[in-house]
Amino acid sequence: MLRWLTAGESHGPELVAILEGLPAGIPVSLDDIRADLARRKLGYGRGARMKFEQDELSISGGVRHGLSLGSPIALRIGNTEWPKWSEVMSPEPVDPDSLGRGRGAPLTRPRPGHADLVGMQKYGFDEARPVLERASARETAARVALGAVARSFLAELGVRLVAHTLAIGPVRVPEGRPLPLPDDVDQLDADPLRCFDPETSAAMVAEVDAAHKDGDTLGGVVEVLAYGVPPGLGSYVHWDRRLDAQLAAALMGIQAIKGVEVGDGFLTTTRRGSVAHDELHQGEGRILRGSDRAGGTEGGMSTGTVLRVRAGMKPIATVPHALPTVDVATGEPAVAHHQRSDVVAVPAAGVVAEAMVALTLANAMLEKFGGDSVAETRRNLDAYLAAIPAT
Amino acid sequence: MLRWLTAGESHGPELVAILEGLPAGIPVSLDDIRADLARRKLGYGRGARMKFEQDELSISGGVRHGLSLGSPIALRIGNTEWPKWSEVMSPEPVDPDSLGRGRGAPLTRPRPGHADLVGMQKYGFDEARPVLERASARETAARVALGAVARSFLAELGVRLVAHTLAIGPVRVPEGRPLPLPDDVDQLDADPLRCFDPETSAAMVAEVDAAHKDGDTLGGVVEVLAYGVPPGLGSYVHWDRRLDAQLAAALMGIQAIKGVEVGDGFLTTTRRGSVAHDELHQGEGRILRGSDRAGGTEGGMSTGTVLRVRAGMKPIATVPHALPTVDVATGEPAVAHHQRSDVVAVPAAGVVAEAMVALTLANAMLEKFGGDSVAETRRNLDAYLAAIPAT
Amino acid sequence: MLRWLTAGESHGPELVAILEGLPAGIPVSLDDIRADLARRKLGYGRGARMKFEQDELSISGGVRHGLSLGSPIALRIGNTEWPKWSEVMSPEPVDPDSLGRGRGAPLTRPRPGHADLVGMQKYGFDEARPVLERASARETAARVALGAVARSFLAELGVRLVAHTLAIGPVRVPEGRPLPLPDDVDQLDADPLRCFDPETSAAMVAEVDAAHKDGDTLGGVVEVLAYGVPPGLGSYVHWDRRLDAQLAAALMGIQAIKGVEVGDGFLTTTRRGSVAHDELHQGEGRILRGSDRAGGTEGGMSTGTVLRVRAGMKPIATVPHALPTVDVATGEPAVAHHQRSDVVAVPAAGVVAEAMVALTLANAMLEKFGGDSVAETRRNLDAYLAAIPAT
Amino acid sequence: MLRWLTAGESHGPELVAILEGLPAGIPVSLDDIRADLARRKLGYGRGARMKFEQDELSISGGVRHGLSLGSPIALRIGNTEWPKWSEVMSPEPVDPDSLGRGRGAPLTRPRPGHADLVGMQKYGFDEARPVLERASARETAARVALGAVARSFLAELGVRLVAHTLAIGPVRVPEGRPLPLPDDVDQLDADPLRCFDPETSAAMVAEVDAAHKDGDTLGGVVEVLAYGVPPGLGSYVHWDRRLDAQLAAALMGIQAIKGVEVGDGFLTTTRRGSVAHDELHQGEGRILRGSDRAGGTEGGMSTGTVLRVRAGMKPIATVPHALPTVDVATGEPAVAHHQRSDVVAVPAAGVVAEAMVALTLANAMLEKFGGDSVAETRRNLDAYLAAIPAT
Repeated sequence: MLRWLTAGESHGPELVAILEGLPAGIPVSLDDIRADLARRKLGYGRGARMKFEQDELSISGGVRHGLSLGSPIALRIGNTEWPKWSEVMSPEPVDPDSLGRGRGAPLTRPRPGHADLVGMQKYGFDEARPVLERASARETAARVALGAVARSFLAELGVRLVAHTLAIGPVRVPEGRPLPLPDDVDQLDADPLRCFDPETSAAMVAEVDAAHKDGDTLGGVVEVLAYGVPPGLGSYVHWDRRLDAQLAAALMGIQAIKGVEVGDGFLTTTRRGSVAHDELHQGEGRILRGSDRAGGTEGGMSTGTVLRVRAGMKPIATVPHALPTVDVATGEPAVAHHQRSDVVAVPAAGVVAEAMVALTLANAMLEKFGGDSVAETRRNLDAYLAAIPAT
Repeated sequence: MLRWLTAGESHGPELVAILEGLPAGIPVSLDDIRADLARRKLGYGRGARMKFEQDELSISGGVRHGLSLGSPIALRIGNTEWPKWSEVMSPEPVDPDSLGRGRGAPLTRPRPGHADLVGMQKYGFDEARPVLERASARETAARVALGAVARSFLAELGVRLVAHTLAIGPVRVPEGRPLPLPDDVDQLDADPLRCFDPETSAAMVAEVDAAHKDGDTLGGVVEVLAYGVPPGLGSYVHWDRRLDAQLAAALMGIQAIKGVEVGDGFLTTTRRGSVAHDELHQGEGRILRGSDRAGGTEGGMSTGTVLRVRAGMKPIATVPHALPTVDVATGEPAVAHHQRSDVVAVPAAGVVAEAMVALTLANAMLEKFGGDSVAETRRNLDAYLAAIPAT
Repeated sequence: MLRWLTAGESHGPELVAILEGLPAGIPVSLDDIRADLARRKLGYGRGARMKFEQDELSISGGVRHGLSLGSPIALRIGNTEWPKWSEVMSPEPVDPDSLGRGRGAPLTRPRPGHADLVGMQKYGFDEARPVLERASARETAARVALGAVARSFLAELGVRLVAHTLAIGPVRVPEGRPLPLPDDVDQLDADPLRCFDPETSAAMVAEVDAAHKDGDTLGGVVEVLAYGVPPGLGSYVHWDRRLDAQLAAALMGIQAIKGVEVGDGFLTTTRRGSVAHDELHQGEGRILRGSDRAGGTEGGMSTGTVLRVRAGMKPIATVPHALPTVDVATGEPAVAHHQRSDVVAVPAAGVVAEAMVALTLANAMLEKFGGDSVAETRRNLDAYLAAIPAT
Repeated sequence: MLRWLTAGESHGPELVAILEGLPAGIPVSLDDIRADLARRKLGYGRGARMKFEQDELSISGGVRHGLSLGSPIALRIGNTEWPKWSEVMSPEPVDPDSLGRGRGAPLTRPRPGHADLVGMQKYGFDEARPVLERASARETAARVALGAVARSFLAELGVRLVAHTLAIGPVRVPEGRPLPLPDDVDQLDADPLRCFDPETSAAMVAEVDAAHKDGDTLGGVVEVLAYGVPPGLGSYVHWDRRLDAQLAAALMGIQAIKGVEVGDGFLTTTRRGSVAHDELHQGEGRILRGSDRAGGTEGGMSTGTVLRVRAGMKPIATVPHALPTVDVATGEPAVAHHQRSDVVAVPAAGVVAEAMVALTLANAMLEKFGGDSVAETRRNLDAYLAAIPAT
């Protein structure tokens, strides 16, 4: 079983992540992780923060000479802006007189659509700084770093992932367009919105420009594809062992995600049964499915066809034309704090979603195949695949 | 922390469920659980099985004189049809000659859209019987029974749940219609499709009739509402502690669910930020939200407004005009086994979804408030609510 | 990962247990489970209750035609005395007037050495009945039943378990006596105290007789041996993945156990390092250890030699010459309730300990080797063993 | 629920630990943690490594201005010797030619009593370096750091911990000597072996000197006391919720521990029931126990008296007169690698044991009392204690 924890505040000294349970022998490369962290910053419509937010990556444990050791893997992502925040976010007590102004001023105007107000109520804070520091999407960098490690494990098992943007606000890739393949990732990364359909991408750019001009923000939908997943990950025998349930939690557990779909998702709910499922046919040496409406799962298990899941992201809650709120220090009406200036973060969410899917699939692989070295896991996987009857 | 397991096959002697971690002192009534089990069978468009599938409910442990004991609660739901299946599904070995015919014949034509084929591959079976017996939606009766217990606990804490049908196939309740309140449950149960909008309900009935006439099946969308949830269940501090992530897993973990939404879900992804969030206003003694687009969660926590989540169900995969498949015994094309004759099971799915939400919220309550007796949990909750500043 | 829950009160209608996560294809026999339940009642010095406490065993799910299905396995153990208790322990409300006398009288004199007093404080009860019903060792019957299933799985993987009695009160098997082998179990079961050393067994019988004559009770020490465990179960990489830690929890989690040892345990702490470890030698095709002081674990992992763990049981707390206590209804001094009349239950504890070790090892096997059918787990295990270098 | 992971190799750049689930508002002080890390190095008979092993402590997240934030707490403990090891333990690939000599030479002579040989077999390594780097007791520094945080939380709830040395090799504190109180910790820290009995301490020093002279090593026994624990932590309702089972796992999960006891432990197994339990008496406003044989638990729950648990440590396995082994590169007999020169590490083990008990109790507190701020947890605890009847 894979276990992982992340820690760190948005303006703290660093993010830290530990991943426990991976086998030994997995290639772990700082460059590969850095590449994923850079992909997380891609996307038209991002504000200045993304440029500042440089990622000083290091490995604290669990990796030696480029290979995992089987012990917990620890990664750190330093915050290059830490010197500016070292007093406001100091782990140690500071002179109270030095706070209260500028960056240190209490944030008493909670932002609608954020964790601010409820976080203060839950944890007993009288301002929102301690909440937003952790609730911020900055934390997803730690997940992306771990996801890169999980993806390297999956690659050793023949699985490759692709995330792409399906919709930005109301602009959506039409049904029936081809899905990107693993080798299309460079093309996706080069697209301003990580959209595989050039025509739609152009319309998305226009939509972002329009929202930006209006001082507004946008959401959208991303899709993650996993190629090479063997049949039988997850299980129907208990609800929480269903792969689709685990994927739903993994995706809904990303900041700002409000909807999750497997395969055709809600569209399927409008179809009739005779045209909603994937028929079975005898293929070359194994049984094939004639379509992929189900998104590569049946009965909560992977089917062996391409796995396909989607996440819907609400528009960024920090709207330049700030939203009405209440100043909790006074009880008076106010406008919300404004902390960033992105118009849309959907392409980045795709990269985060890919990381969450990678971590989920890596766990499912270990549950089914076990193994303490990547050679052992691979051997068990191969023997399983060889034992599936051809019929 | 609440833990629970269910067991039992569709045509086995009984379903069994154990729920561990509930406080002592919760009213647990066989009649209340039976009422929920009966609600699970409601709905226009169900086949004959629902009539046969009578639920012989009993409590094996964890309850004394109508109150929970703090020890694990065990429920059993007997299968009144067991005598017909006692040989085919016997736990003990039977004479092989007596099988192979009738109910005991091997099911070698896996049904598209079901767990059949992948389940056989995963577990190494040469026919689908052992798979479909557990993958069947019959198992959800155990969840509904446990959900009734969880709901009784929630009721002691002031939380009441309502599930209703939003869509059957393409027929959907228009946006903006009023939401049902806890006292509307009887009205919902009386509606053929558990739809709160009479006009839409009538159209749904027509849609079911049409599908039935065509030998086809339908899916749809259900919504679960929770009234009285305090602010601060779940947390933003780690992805898997987010209430929305937990709810997503709980709902996607129901058979045939392909999509999950919190609040306005995917619709929100098409809105601009200035009209997508819930603004804050000073109310009578506390801060109020002017809308409920978010579905009662912010930052992965309950906000204290009505919690609102949705699940989208694919059309029933056992289509009367059976789908093409392969006979795994011969490798020849075939048509799928046909096991039931429902047209649509969406109203039942709403009852199951309500149970899953109840179990998820009960767990979140215990995580935040602890308590080994319902009086203790309630006391901790009240003290927390009293300590939230009025501003 | 193996998950399991048990439920049921000592005088309730039945015990129920669910075990989730076992592969398909494991032989599960009612007779084998019954045999283990009978072994749990063995032992010189048991009172009348053991005769009454007949076990009506049935399988509710997870098993078909004698083989596990991969789905959760549910077992029930009916209480043959239930008719006598059906009012006192009724899950449904009863007429209060019918209680308060005889079996239904409130138990307000908590017994020292039992869960009674603290259980009342924790759960908010005003008498001890609801506590002792669950805290009773009767619950271990459910664990023994599940342990029999786990042991069948282990047998398929070449692992066989033996439990034996090391000490009864101050009477202890001398150091250096031979360990029982798997084929010695019948001989152990035939011994009045499940002790493998006949001379010591005779002294134990005398000790039991003496205690009985004095109206007193005894404890003792049991040892569980596991033969055929492969090297590498558990792990040093994180404390809670250590097999020894998991075994310690499993054994200390049995009622009345106050001490746990691995291998020579506390005796080892008095030795010097030069004579405390197991030296390594090149053997026939693999590296061998010249001794087994460590009990078959190094670094929290099984070494491949015989696994050997011990549990120390306090004397039975319900002493015939009842212990002083306080009547919580009056605050006055009193003597404790007296519920049973065993002198010693150590032999039974050995059977329970064996079950707990079996469940722990079964879980460790699945963690390392995965597998959804016993054939798959076995294949993965064999391939692993074949890959270990001969040096 | 408290979750925590540690990472880092013995000679890697640093240890990292993340602790998730603590409430907000707990004082977290770098100085306090450093003090505990220093206590972990105390003890007569430690070798040179302890002096080198300086601990560069920093907090990466979860703490602001000296108080916990409710978010995961991350700590780092830098390895001041890292420059010497930066090539041998580099996370990134290095020139293979630069290895193979000195510190980088493959360790092919696995040490008896260590994880070396089994670790290589399990993870598929051809030398022991990757194993011993993680299996080393160096890792316990991370636990001690987290334990200091847990202890601060417990202090806010009125609980104080003390660990002391009961035995070094065969030299043991006689039964019946007074137990150290929380205010005695400074005195303990000043004792060469953290033993509370001066006479025994002197004999322990002599034993260490004798073993050192003989080129040998020693083990021993430590005891951890917790004062101020409320009644009712843990539960009898399910085996794995028993506090004693959790403590047993926590203690056995420490490197080199081979035995665990609660209260009088194995000594209790030799007593008769009439003198083995703690009788109950009406005291001033509550029921008191006349003794503490049970170690502060009944029925797997804390009783409210002092909690008392013990761990037995085997002698250090790296014996100066090195133990026979096999060189896995050649299959020839050899003597084991020798990596350190301590004679005894029992006093340090006491500090580690204290940390593990602190983490276990902190988790049990949260399970029973919940709370997201320390004020909330404290409020819930106080209300619970106030509600316990005086009788």
